[in-house]
Amino acid sequence: MTISADFLRAIAKAASAETLPRFRSQGAVANKLDAGFDPVTEADREAERVIRALIREAHPDHGILGEEHGLENAGSRHMWIIDPIDGTRAFISGIPVWGTLVGLTVDGDAVAGLMSQPFTGELFWATEDGAGYEGPGGARPLATRKVTSLSEAILFTTTPSLFKGAARQRFDRLEQAVRLSRYGTDCYAFAMIAAGQVDIVADPGLQSYDIAALIPLIERAGGVVTTFDGGPAENGGDIVAAATPELHAAARAMLAG
Amino acid sequence: MTISADFLRAIAKAASAETLPRFRSQGAVANKLDAGFDPVTEADREAERVIRALIREAHPDHGILGEEHGLENAGSRHMWIIDPIDGTRAFISGIPVWGTLVGLTVDGDAVAGLMSQPFTGELFWATEDGAGYEGPGGARPLATRKVTSLSEAILFTTTPSLFKGAARQRFDRLEQAVRLSRYGTDCYAFAMIAAGQVDIVADPGLQSYDIAALIPLIERAGGVVTTFDGGPAENGGDIVAAATPELHAAARAMLAG
Repeated sequence: MTISADFLRAIAKAASAETLPRFRSQGAVANKLDAGFDPVTEADREAERVIRALIREAHPDHGILGEEHGLENAGSRHMWIIDPIDGTRAFISGIPVWGTLVGLTVDGDAVAGLMSQPFTGELFWATEDGAGYEGPGGARPLATRKVTSLSEAILFTTTPSLFKGAARQRFDRLEQAVRLSRYGTDCYAFAMIAAGQVDIVADPGLQSYDIAALIPLIERAGGVVTTFDGGPAENGGDIVAAATPELHAAARAMLAG
Repeated sequence: MTISADFLRAIAKAASAETLPRFRSQGAVANKLDAGFDPVTEADREAERVIRALIREAHPDHGILGEEHGLENAGSRHMWIIDPIDGTRAFISGIPVWGTLVGLTVDGDAVAGLMSQPFTGELFWATEDGAGYEGPGGARPLATRKVTSLSEAILFTTTPSLFKGAARQRFDRLEQAVRLSRYGTDCYAFAMIAAGQVDIVADPGLQSYDIAALIPLIERAGGVVTTFDGGPAENGGDIVAAATPELHAAARAMLAG
């Protein structure tokens, strides 16, 4: 069983039909939690619904885990992991750096995935055969930038305030060691590692559905993504991704407790 | 003398021809300062060059102030203020939230302006006659969201670390009072106020060319933009923009020293 790029394209297209018309439309926001602010939109729910339908139709025996609609076929070796809109805060703020994330794990290893940004018309995909970018500038293979030292690296994080206590001090030191840092891009920054634009992303406390789809993109493009302590990223946690093994080791050494 | 939307469109188009082909191309980055990291690209220099040429041709007696090429016709009542790429960090990181900013002041008041994001194909413009959005979803007038209370507002800032000392404490209190906050979008967040997606942007230490072009967009769309102490925003400084006069007053009361 191999997943084709065309199957990933079909998923991205179906999800886009649910998300894009609702992007920048007013009044679509509901609160997932009464306390605090964890926005989720109709787009989130409807996109996951159509993604699940495509997967069920093509692979009825596969498992599916989604942020919105839970787990089905829990015992399958093949598990699809869906975040219909990663970056809901960007989505509701009108900023086009959210993305639809769909990944496939086999026996817990991420082997295929996609990140789709419908407003910019960009698709980042990876299968067991390769990884590609498709967007306004055309199509090309995904390949990381060959940066190996922190002093040359561009670092992203969603917000440093998610790092607490000693972890924040370690992040601040990493930030001081790199060439440039920037905040606030969720999945888009991880995709930019695969595309050779960003060199390190560090984000604590991710869920499986925040990262699983992005692992094959980054790995197939030449990068490395693990937890801060070097474990597999598939289950989420404190995640660091980097453009090269050397850079990943250097970043991880600064982030690990 | 009235500036037409077509003239602003021509400026955006000419600038885009210089910026877009260089976006996500490697190796175009030069360091403006040896100490620290203040990136500027060929795109920055070439875009300002073509923008200046169009303005000189149409309005040879007007003044021009640009980030890259300095001041000409300093004594003119009409002054064009150019930031060819606002958000150079976003630009070199491959994130499509940078923009080309061109504004016109008359006797120091901002009367017309544009923000152009060529990768997404978006143009935000304002003249003395009105203000409009043009993008992938079509064209429509710019209008802010009619949010009047902090608890309903979406707040953006480039990064809280630009607020120092007591100013940082005041910003943190503002952040706790709003519904949602997000970092890292430069001019794009200001344009999103005009487009009705974001409600407050607070950014300290802006230059004139960071904000002048955005003032007419926000004002013509129904918003308010001033310094933290309520002075005119045209000369830069600590700038707060908001979707409504009520919201602006509430945000300013928390930010002012």
